[in-house]
Amino acid sequence: MRAEIIAVGSELLTPFRLDTNSLFLTSQLNQLGIRVIHKAVVGDGPDEMRSSFRHALDRAELVVSSGGLGPTDDDRTRQTVAELLGRKLHTDPHILQYIKQRFQRFRPGRVMPEINARQALVPEGATVLPNPKGTAPGLWLEANGHIVILLPGVPAELQALFEAEVKPRLARFAEPMRLFTRELRITGLPESEVETRVSPLYALYPNTETTILASPPGIQLHPSVWSDDAGKAERLLDEIVDRMALALGEHLFSTRGEALEEVVGRILTENRATIAVAESCTGGLLAERLTNVPGSSIYFLGGVVCYSNDLKTRLVDVPPALLESKGAVSPEVAMALAEGIRKRTGATIGIGVTGIAGPGGGSPEKPVGLAYIGIADERGPRQKEFRFVGDRDRIRLFASQSALDMARRYFLLPSYGRS
Amino acid sequence: MRAEIIAVGSELLTPFRLDTNSLFLTSQLNQLGIRVIHKAVVGDGPDEMRSSFRHALDRAELVVSSGGLGPTDDDRTRQTVAELLGRKLHTDPHILQYIKQRFQRFRPGRVMPEINARQALVPEGATVLPNPKGTAPGLWLEANGHIVILLPGVPAELQALFEAEVKPRLARFAEPMRLFTRELRITGLPESEVETRVSPLYALYPNTETTILASPPGIQLHPSVWSDDAGKAERLLDEIVDRMALALGEHLFSTRGEALEEVVGRILTENRATIAVAESCTGGLLAERLTNVPGSSIYFLGGVVCYSNDLKTRLVDVPPALLESKGAVSPEVAMALAEGIRKRTGATIGIGVTGIAGPGGGSPEKPVGLAYIGIADERGPRQKEFRFVGDRDRIRLFASQSALDMARRYFLLPSYGRS
Repeated sequence: MRAEIIAVGSELLTPFRLDTNSLFLTSQLNQLGIRVIHKAVVGDGPDEMRSSFRHALDRAELVVSSGGLGPTDDDRTRQTVAELLGRKLHTDPHILQYIKQRFQRFRPGRVMPEINARQALVPEGATVLPNPKGTAPGLWLEANGHIVILLPGVPAELQALFEAEVKPRLARFAEPMRLFTRELRITGLPESEVETRVSPLYALYPNTETTILASPPGIQLHPSVWSDDAGKAERLLDEIVDRMALALGEHLFSTRGEALEEVVGRILTENRATIAVAESCTGGLLAERLTNVPGSSIYFLGGVVCYSNDLKTRLVDVPPALLESKGAVSPEVAMALAEGIRKRTGATIGIGVTGIAGPGGGSPEKPVGLAYIGIADERGPRQKEFRFVGDRDRIRLFASQSALDMARRYFLLPSYGRS
Repeated sequence: MRAEIIAVGSELLTPFRLDTNSLFLTSQLNQLGIRVIHKAVVGDGPDEMRSSFRHALDRAELVVSSGGLGPTDDDRTRQTVAELLGRKLHTDPHILQYIKQRFQRFRPGRVMPEINARQALVPEGATVLPNPKGTAPGLWLEANGHIVILLPGVPAELQALFEAEVKPRLARFAEPMRLFTRELRITGLPESEVETRVSPLYALYPNTETTILASPPGIQLHPSVWSDDAGKAERLLDEIVDRMALALGEHLFSTRGEALEEVVGRILTENRATIAVAESCTGGLLAERLTNVPGSSIYFLGGVVCYSNDLKTRLVDVPPALLESKGAVSPEVAMALAEGIRKRTGATIGIGVTGIAGPGGGSPEKPVGLAYIGIADERGPRQKEFRFVGDRDRIRLFASQSALDMARRYFLLPSYGRS
């Protein structure tokens, strides 16, 4: 079964609001083996709404909408769909009673405003889906082999109503074919290079589909397969993932959708190692990413954000003469930062980041985007030079990513970090 | 002119991804007086994509799409739209040359992979819109009184390309009625309280519309008005904003959509003051937010992320006896962190944050979400207690927000921070 999701509401066509209900609905539908092939956002205007529902019915067997079931003049989903399907509307006395009771319960002393009676209008032949968290009930309509489900737009109401009323009814349409998927995370390769490396596999696995997704600072690959046999699907995905891993080499850092900082945390824990960081251009982002992982206090000892030269000396003992002779953005200072924070904290490895995030501060010799990342262990420091492209945010993001990746590779490839 | 926005990409039909480009596009189009009447998200399948573009052309004079212009097999927007409009595709030698040059510039020694040549395909009669930030150019097509604009899906590329190439071309279609809007940012009040304070104003300004948006860790208010008279519209918005400011008091920190860290940076600069931070539970997020602002090196001296008690002592001189007697999460340690980092760095004000971000580490006396934030100036430290609700991310975000807000209020209300 193929589904389309329509979000109704003029506020969703402003620059300020996104429809988020469709993420919940997609997750629920996919679990029932139902594919979402199209999503639409439409305002309160009857013409556009009618057009949207009509085209959805052309494309999909199931149409699920959210919003436009409220009591005001703007709430026209009920009427528009009834007209489109050629159904008359009538007032359902049970719903009217329920709404009146809700008013008495939640707003003692207030009677139901007359406009709320609109919420009791039901198209002929529709099944009413009681709303456990609000006044507007959902509606289930079947017509010409299609199912149309109208849900309220408030996320808590939509979710409660879906769980209680829609899911059990959709279960009988659940497909034996369900979607199985993996999430591979790659860093240090551009999207086109990832594609070049893995695309020869597509022909070998014609029944799978792989989505490639640039998700700066990394790339994601989502191989997926629809199958009615979970064991078979998982084995097939194992095989594809193994081959992709071979093609991607050390650039692949997770086959289960982990963030790079989670992987670094896992590796540090496995190696009973600790880390500390001294950052300049990343301004705390590296420490922030490392500590974003629950339980990171086991391996993350601490960090220093030293913007001024003075603080590089006072907080992590970078020699003033070195800052003077080489400049703050230099391989030597990156190594001194790494070595300094390691010695101050007693961590297994220290990381030092220095660079020019921009927009100001660049020069022909040291342009915006230039960064040096140092890594130090008990045998001393080493460093790498990077030239990042983009704006301040992007440079900081990629610098923190490269620093995390150096920490990962330190443990992954002994020759890289420890020779 | 009425516009429709189509986001192309199968990943946008998963439970994991939302199309966010449409917010930027809507804002830009509204500023030109162009209303967005419908938005769609469609996968890579040619049938659904064709159906989506065809119906969009039925409804709107302008269709703007994002995504599907990459170099891979999945990227079919170009071909699908060319077919739909009955245009042949040909390879544009200038684009091909540009892509090859970009490869040489950013990846010295690497030649362009063959698949990237697809990005040089152009439908007959289309205007090529150069992409300043990537390889995929945008395309502008006109057919039967309609305009179709194809843009890349990467937000930075889409935005740069829109600003440079699309906006000037659309200017000649700009309508006299344009949307004027303001963006108010509020912190420290729940959405319902903001609504209660400002909603009495709605009836006084029937021709304006105000969107309220929970955008953790704050609330945004967007009063807006469609008008063909810029002066009149701006005066009306000035008046509404003034009344809203009165209702919101010191919780309102920007009337022009600034981030709290930008406001803090501006206030520090105006006061020729400097800041330094010592963080525990926020793990670098506070420093990261402060340094995210271009030019922050003028007022941000540095920070320390001290997770372990040992480092709280070694890096910012928190007395071990204090940690022992009061515990790391205590008002006294928050003040010692603020005082310690201020003394170490010589900053005008020092901020100290200590708390329990969870999910582990809580106890009945000191539950997850408890945090103390200290602020110190030359007269010594003071502190505030907070009890944040939610998961680790949310607690860290709200703790960093509260710390920034204490810095803002320090300069805003002398009696608060300096009495």
